Amino acid sequence: MPRLVLLRHGQSAWNLENRFTGWWDVDVTELGVTEARAAGQMLADAGFDFDTCFTSVQTRAIKTLNLALEEMGRLWLPVTKDWRLNERHYGGLTGLNKQEMTAKVGAEQVHIWRRSFDIPPPELEADSAFDVSKDRRYAGIAVPRTESLKDTIARVLPYWDAAIAPRLKAGERVVISAHGNSLRALVKHLSGISDDEIPTLEIPTGQPLVYELDADLKEIERYYLKDRA
Amino acid sequence: MPRLVLLRHGQSAWNLENRFTGWWDVDVTELGVTEARAAGQMLADAGFDFDTCFTSVQTRAIKTLNLALEEMGRLWLPVTKDWRLNERHYGGLTGLNKQEMTAKVGAEQVHIWRRSFDIPPPELEADSAFDVSKDRRYAGIAVPRTESLKDTIARVLPYWDAAIAPRLKAGERVVISAHGNSLRALVKHLSGISDDEIPTLEIPTGQPLVYELDADLKEIERYYLKDRA
Repeated sequence: MPRLVLLRHGQSAWNLENRFTGWWDVDVTELGVTEARAAGQMLADAGFDFDTCFTSVQTRAIKTLNLALEEMGRLWLPVTKDWRLNERHYGGLTGLNKQEMTAKVGAEQVHIWRRSFDIPPPELEADSAFDVSKDRRYAGIAVPRTESLKDTIARVLPYWDAAIAPRLKAGERVVISAHGNSLRALVKHLSGISDDEIPTLEIPTGQPLVYELDADLKEIERYYLKDRA
Repeated sequence: MPRLVLLRHGQSAWNLENRFTGWWDVDVTELGVTEARAAGQMLADAGFDFDTCFTSVQTRAIKTLNLALEEMGRLWLPVTKDWRLNERHYGGLTGLNKQEMTAKVGAEQVHIWRRSFDIPPPELEADSAFDVSKDRRYAGIAVPRTESLKDTIARVLPYWDAAIAPRLKAGERVVISAHGNSLRALVKHLSGISDDEIPTLEIPTGQPLVYELDADLKEIERYYLKDRA
């Protein structure tokens, strides 16, 4: 039976500062490094192994994967990096401290932007310091100016179908290192979670989430490895 | 004009202990980590950038590449890992301290094994603790029992021709993180160095070696970045 592990990156600098991050490329903190190494150690201790790895093109996810693989003695595994596994683009909220935002527009509006399924935040302003659309890693890509969770899903799932699902169907063991919302997209798809429920489903940083899948790659069982180790 | 950077991994645990390493998968030392980060910083400071990266499947080369890319803000670049960039397989010498070896068989014999072009060391014994032929990363590969430098070249160059040269010819900027002897294979090819001279050509750890190439991928100029920075 296909087995998949999802791994949200370890704590980032902006997780710690409680700022909307999205496509801005912040690093993991020292705690994030520790979480990533612990994830790899937990996977190795539980006898998990992989044949191929996927990550976003964001430093916090790549480093988390590299650190976990190093702990597993598996740095030599193939790693595919793709922007479609990136975090949701938070548009004009990028870089803002969540408390400041709340003070400015009210908790209700912040809650709507963060937690609604299909309402995107306002677009990132053209002169924003957090505009990554000129970053060379996104050359040839129509970098979004903002995304709802629905928008995020609309680019994650085609990538899942085209690049990841075939590897699982071929019998490979796969790990995906990614972000709160790109992983929500996958969890929604694999577990059949509703539009209403998925925005509030929390995926903790640095905790391997294991999926045992059927031949159609639907959930038989999912669990955090920490709850079984 | 195509530009290529070769990078020998930072100091490894067995570089430090002066032991024949070959395909045994030792880690980099603390100094090796520092060397790798310094290489990335030097490349970034000198305005170097890459489109694609190659490495062996050995931890010391992969970590060196990852650390250098991290310093350059380029962890997101595609990385291809291939066993054909591995270090020369030192056969029965693997794991031996070079001083012990010298005491046992004499400096002359050690010199011949290490420095001759086409004389391989004795084969690794079947019960050797340093046998990696069962390592999953080499599944489906006829792992050598020993290699001369000539043997190493015989697997490095076809990979160069098939996988790396086409990228350079397509205008991509390439970095290769590898090992003393797999890099000798490339230097011999690119610079037209003789069989007699190549075994004694030393490539220091953690020092970016820059090749400016012509359209046929032959050397126009090669230099260590430290000598220009």
